[in-house]
Amino acid sequence: MRRASYRKMTITMIIKLKNSPVITCFSCVGGKEERKGPLGDKLDFYDETDRFDKNTWEKAESEMQRRVFNHLLSKRDLKATDVDILIAGDLINQCTSSSYGLLSFDIPYFGIYGACSTAALGLALGGILCDGGYVKRAAVVTSSHFCSAERQFRFPLEYGSQRTPTSQHTATAAGAFFVESSGSGAYIDEVLFGITVDAGIADANNMGAAMAPAAVDTLVKYFRESGTGPESFDLIVTGDLGYEGHRIVTEMMLQLGYDMKNVYNDCGLMLYDRQKQDMHAGASGCGCSAFAMAASILPDIISGKYKNVLFLGSGALLSQASVLQGENIPGVVHLVKLSHREG
Amino acid sequence: MRRASYRKMTITMIIKLKNSPVITCFSCVGGKEERKGPLGDKLDFYDETDRFDKNTWEKAESEMQRRVFNHLLSKRDLKATDVDILIAGDLINQCTSSSYGLLSFDIPYFGIYGACSTAALGLALGGILCDGGYVKRAAVVTSSHFCSAERQFRFPLEYGSQRTPTSQHTATAAGAFFVESSGSGAYIDEVLFGITVDAGIADANNMGAAMAPAAVDTLVKYFRESGTGPESFDLIVTGDLGYEGHRIVTEMMLQLGYDMKNVYNDCGLMLYDRQKQDMHAGASGCGCSAFAMAASILPDIISGKYKNVLFLGSGALLSQASVLQGENIPGVVHLVKLSHREG
Repeated sequence: MRRASYRKMTITMIIKLKNSPVITCFSCVGGKEERKGPLGDKLDFYDETDRFDKNTWEKAESEMQRRVFNHLLSKRDLKATDVDILIAGDLINQCTSSSYGLLSFDIPYFGIYGACSTAALGLALGGILCDGGYVKRAAVVTSSHFCSAERQFRFPLEYGSQRTPTSQHTATAAGAFFVESSGSGAYIDEVLFGITVDAGIADANNMGAAMAPAAVDTLVKYFRESGTGPESFDLIVTGDLGYEGHRIVTEMMLQLGYDMKNVYNDCGLMLYDRQKQDMHAGASGCGCSAFAMAASILPDIISGKYKNVLFLGSGALLSQASVLQGENIPGVVHLVKLSHREG
Repeated sequence: MRRASYRKMTITMIIKLKNSPVITCFSCVGGKEERKGPLGDKLDFYDETDRFDKNTWEKAESEMQRRVFNHLLSKRDLKATDVDILIAGDLINQCTSSSYGLLSFDIPYFGIYGACSTAALGLALGGILCDGGYVKRAAVVTSSHFCSAERQFRFPLEYGSQRTPTSQHTATAAGAFFVESSGSGAYIDEVLFGITVDAGIADANNMGAAMAPAAVDTLVKYFRESGTGPESFDLIVTGDLGYEGHRIVTEMMLQLGYDMKNVYNDCGLMLYDRQKQDMHAGASGCGCSAFAMAASILPDIISGKYKNVLFLGSGALLSQASVLQGENIPGVVHLVKLSHREG
């Protein structure tokens, strides 16, 4: 076990983007349970069968990426050649949901791996590429699918495995975003790439606890370097810590002197109705934060409901083999500071 | 099947790095076969057992990353806190060789996925981050291990599976690189992120053929946009196309009017002695090009033997599941233009 390192901060970690890169447009797609949840009517489209007309879960997840990116293009009436770079990633082995899903688009493509932090990592890199003038328009795409994730990380659905109270439900959802060097939308002001933190958790059914210390590490480093605190923001939102991780972060932050209770939410709490949907500790997966951002948080930033938001994408860096070999589950949390601007 | 798209080039793809980001230092580690090969005496260290003191192949691969990065730090007498960002990736499910291997370093970390193009993709992103002033020193680390790759993509070694003539041998090797915003070394002048190309190959034992059209696509796009050709460079080197892919690229380029024969090499041809080592179509894996770059090509650029080099990292975007589900194997090739400068 390696402890979170926020006590010995010596290096500058905040990357400031001075040229106002902006998230201009976004789209989200989901499955049956996501449609039933509180954000269900914000989905651009959904599939009641979760199959998206494909005969394997892996192909269904790829198809979600293809369709959500296609929808993003159509929302802005753009062609593939209007996009300078595609940045994508997912949870599936060798990120094939992204590579196969986006194969039909003739756009320079590179893959990223941040587990469930992929949406934040992609927006961070897209923001940097636009800010530096390296590209004019980047697209960020990510996805997760409950059925492909269960088969890969736990058991095929047919086994009917039971779930523990701390387990989370991988969201069947995909999100796509344009980040541009100019335009209007939600502005990316700052980025902080997190340090990998091993909190000593080896239970693959308790990802919230595994990732929470990484979220605290990133958040405290950001607060200390920027001289801000929870009161400086309208919303601080983590990616997919769920009820367990949300509670741990709230408690750890309070012990460190930061009272988060009025501003802190987690995308994993936003997707499902806790009373009506039996989702245990909440939602998880790359699609979880992508969906919540596209369906709710980004529109609320653009409308001015939120002026300053910290989005912390949270990733658990495990594989089926690492769990079977008894390794702990390290977490990594990347921060993106977003803001509303008038006019 | 989707054809390579070099006939209909409309977008600007070359990203120019104007502030001279530079690869200042590098390190490489290998296994038994890599030690026996032509570049064996250039390894910083090696392990005759390929185990690196660990009891699983996956942990051995992680340990290679840990040691090679540690060695890189020691070469420059630096501490972890002197490095602004760690960029890493590998072939193993969920990129755990990187996340576990580099867990002990307190450095902001993000993962990339480019299959065997990871070294080039990492150098490209590290170059951009340094060029734009977002970081001063980036570290890029990658690895592959024959035994972990065989178990994951084909069969466990114990099965003693036979190999076809076009199959390549995943290199047991890791490489680590510093990219800095100032200093001396091999300069990164330009970057071109490739487009994913599906050439219709579904044979996981013929990766060279699967990736070759993507290499041609990237190379032709670069030549057309920059107004250069093979004669403009001292060396054009692909990552791991092997004998099969090298031959296909040479032929396809000749058909398109580019005679590559005096300048074109492939890292997959450099690692093993074709007469004495039974490696079929040559080397592959993330570690293949990382090792060849660190052991031979970067030193030759710094010494001035090569003034202008195109390094094309080649990745085959398959997974075991995608192969079993009968999907074709798309390839992606990222280009990094490197140069020698006097003084």
